[in-house]
Amino acid sequence: MNPINVGILGFGTVGTGVAKLLIENQDLIAKRVGTKIPLKRIADIDTTTDRGMTLNPGILINDAHKVINDPKIDIIVETIGGEEIAKELILNALAGGKAVITANKALLAKHGDILFSAATKKGVDLCFEAAVGGCMPIIKTLRESLVGNHIYEMIGILNGTCNYILSKITDEGISFETALAQAKDGGYAEADHTLDVEGLDAAHKLALLSGLAYGMRVDFDDIYIEGISKVTPLDIAFAKEFGYRIKLLAIGKNKNGHVEARVHPTMIPDNSILASVNGTLNAIMVKGDAVGKMLLSGHGAGMMPTASAIISDLADVARNLMYQTCCRVPVLSYQPENIIPHPVLPMADIITNYYFRFAALDQPGVLSKIAGILGNHEISIKSVHQKGRKNNGAVPLVMLTHQAREADVRQALDEIRALDMVGDDPVVIRIED
Amino acid sequence: MNPINVGILGFGTVGTGVAKLLIENQDLIAKRVGTKIPLKRIADIDTTTDRGMTLNPGILINDAHKVINDPKIDIIVETIGGEEIAKELILNALAGGKAVITANKALLAKHGDILFSAATKKGVDLCFEAAVGGCMPIIKTLRESLVGNHIYEMIGILNGTCNYILSKITDEGISFETALAQAKDGGYAEADHTLDVEGLDAAHKLALLSGLAYGMRVDFDDIYIEGISKVTPLDIAFAKEFGYRIKLLAIGKNKNGHVEARVHPTMIPDNSILASVNGTLNAIMVKGDAVGKMLLSGHGAGMMPTASAIISDLADVARNLMYQTCCRVPVLSYQPENIIPHPVLPMADIITNYYFRFAALDQPGVLSKIAGILGNHEISIKSVHQKGRKNNGAVPLVMLTHQAREADVRQALDEIRALDMVGDDPVVIRIED
Repeated sequence: MNPINVGILGFGTVGTGVAKLLIENQDLIAKRVGTKIPLKRIADIDTTTDRGMTLNPGILINDAHKVINDPKIDIIVETIGGEEIAKELILNALAGGKAVITANKALLAKHGDILFSAATKKGVDLCFEAAVGGCMPIIKTLRESLVGNHIYEMIGILNGTCNYILSKITDEGISFETALAQAKDGGYAEADHTLDVEGLDAAHKLALLSGLAYGMRVDFDDIYIEGISKVTPLDIAFAKEFGYRIKLLAIGKNKNGHVEARVHPTMIPDNSILASVNGTLNAIMVKGDAVGKMLLSGHGAGMMPTASAIISDLADVARNLMYQTCCRVPVLSYQPENIIPHPVLPMADIITNYYFRFAALDQPGVLSKIAGILGNHEISIKSVHQKGRKNNGAVPLVMLTHQAREADVRQALDEIRALDMVGDDPVVIRIED
Repeated sequence: MNPINVGILGFGTVGTGVAKLLIENQDLIAKRVGTKIPLKRIADIDTTTDRGMTLNPGILINDAHKVINDPKIDIIVETIGGEEIAKELILNALAGGKAVITANKALLAKHGDILFSAATKKGVDLCFEAAVGGCMPIIKTLRESLVGNHIYEMIGILNGTCNYILSKITDEGISFETALAQAKDGGYAEADHTLDVEGLDAAHKLALLSGLAYGMRVDFDDIYIEGISKVTPLDIAFAKEFGYRIKLLAIGKNKNGHVEARVHPTMIPDNSILASVNGTLNAIMVKGDAVGKMLLSGHGAGMMPTASAIISDLADVARNLMYQTCCRVPVLSYQPENIIPHPVLPMADIITNYYFRFAALDQPGVLSKIAGILGNHEISIKSVHQKGRKNNGAVPLVMLTHQAREADVRQALDEIRALDMVGDDPVVIRIED
């Protein structure tokens, strides 16, 4: 059996991890796969910086197109990131008949259609295990292990930066700003933290997972996204008092074709397994008709966990090439003709439980007024808590609701906001019981 | 593409689940795999009992050999259980060139050698995702997702019956006997509970996983096994006080070729994710050089979760048949020539932390005597707690140790046991921090 040669585009953190693993664990990989998977080339515009590893001469070059066009290279690993250049290179590689592996979730979430159909048309593999959840094998689990299940629900902690920040605020009582600064110091947050903290990264991953789980094409722009920058230590403390922990969840549900896809801070019971997933860890709970609930957890990012996921794809593609097959498992779980575009339920139509915190002025009748408005909008109150000291003449009035419709909640809150006896903007956090 | 026909041996709980899923979700499965996987025959000696589902006439027969020898059947699913008959049928099916899927962990743990080599020799697939952890895809994860990792450690809650019983004792303070009775009432324990409660079932699974993780053939008889029947509410209460929860763990480690394989009640930190896996749930934590720690959790038994795992294998085999390949992923993770028999480290050489509970008579000098003996055997004490009221003139004296060698612990306990001032047998529970 001839070895199957790999070319890597991009010699940053992830590219370096893949190169390291391919070299350091090459014997292990060959003993398992049954053939060697040597690293033939890496392309990066920076060919001089020390990445802490030694490459044989001639491996590192500065021209990605040379890697793509090298007839001896069978599989391309794209670790450049970004959108335009990566997209062009992947399309060129696919057109040249090369299998492609990428961890580029933003690219796949936004331009997946064109990439997936290019791969299908050419009959080559396009794999992306590392795009969601780092080393957690959620892509393989959805595509292969759960092949016999109708999937009803996915609830994921899919962004390690947010989970680190929320864990810090919860366990140490520090502010969002301090926690974010610590995340940056520790290397757990990018210099530009917007993609992570505002929920976009988690939403990219949810878009991909929804497609795989339901055999649907979900439009990224249909996903409701709310980040964690407004989560306060006060609400986290209240959550704790009521037996909850706040997590940034990516929630995907499919109830008889009503598809929900939303990312927002959420209260979950503190004795649930997801609540014990803290720090930079990721996790995802999947509910299917046969399996019931199952959970995966692991490092969602980092050089070596991401590299491990890419090596898993590399081995899969290598096995396909060894047996002269490809697309053995369809790229989006379902055979292409069975994937249908499907609308996401508008956020206004979501039904869930809510936590509200109002800044209620210390006047008689406030509670009855607010409760009255909620009642008028069919929002049934489960419990009310008025606690703590006055702050600018207001005390926190906290309410937990039974199931209510988001549209009703929005209308009720608009009316409550207009009351003189309520200061500040009400805080709303959804609850997943 | 011609459909790929399935024959099931055994129409008990698991066989019924597989039949249900194949029939009810047949469209879903075809949309994903790209071909139908119809159920052609089920064999069971009982062809009359109502299993709550309708089969087309002629599907259910009473002769397993007719299923195995049917030239139209491509894949055999063995759900009979037990050892001799199942072994003979599987060997016959493999010899006839049929792929086989089984959930029979006891059979594989004890007679895997002969079955795996029969499949390899004939060049047909033998799959067993459902044998460990029910719907948790731990077999696929070890064989495929972690292909680039040296695996150092696996720590699993692999028996739902034991986890249910321990959770009940912990959360409700009831005795082992009451919890076992409740498990039987709830259908979570077999009439003969020995295999589960005494740790054998978890050990069967650990034997299989060790082989897959390390490329080694581990002898089942080398595994140290201690069940949960001696775990008392008192020790569980002490564990809680020190921030631990007691679980029956299957522990497999590989430190530079020193392979540990042991099943015993273990204290784990109560803020760890494994500690939050309660009731009948299973979970496994795997540690590899690239992924770090990752965790899977889900229903480890039950009709439909087990059936889901079998359908995952069925789809894998069907995809292989569609592309005229087989054994694409080697049955034991490593290519057959790379699997070596390997001794398990004797239990006496294990190094871990310990919890001891002595029944110390209320006499001066007891503590110094016990501490002296432990010190003589290089066992360093981390903390000492003497609590509670006298019982037969004795009070519980609890000690937590730093890392110590099991052989030293055994010798020290023999000496302590011989002391007049210590009543009853000391309780020993290992701690996994």
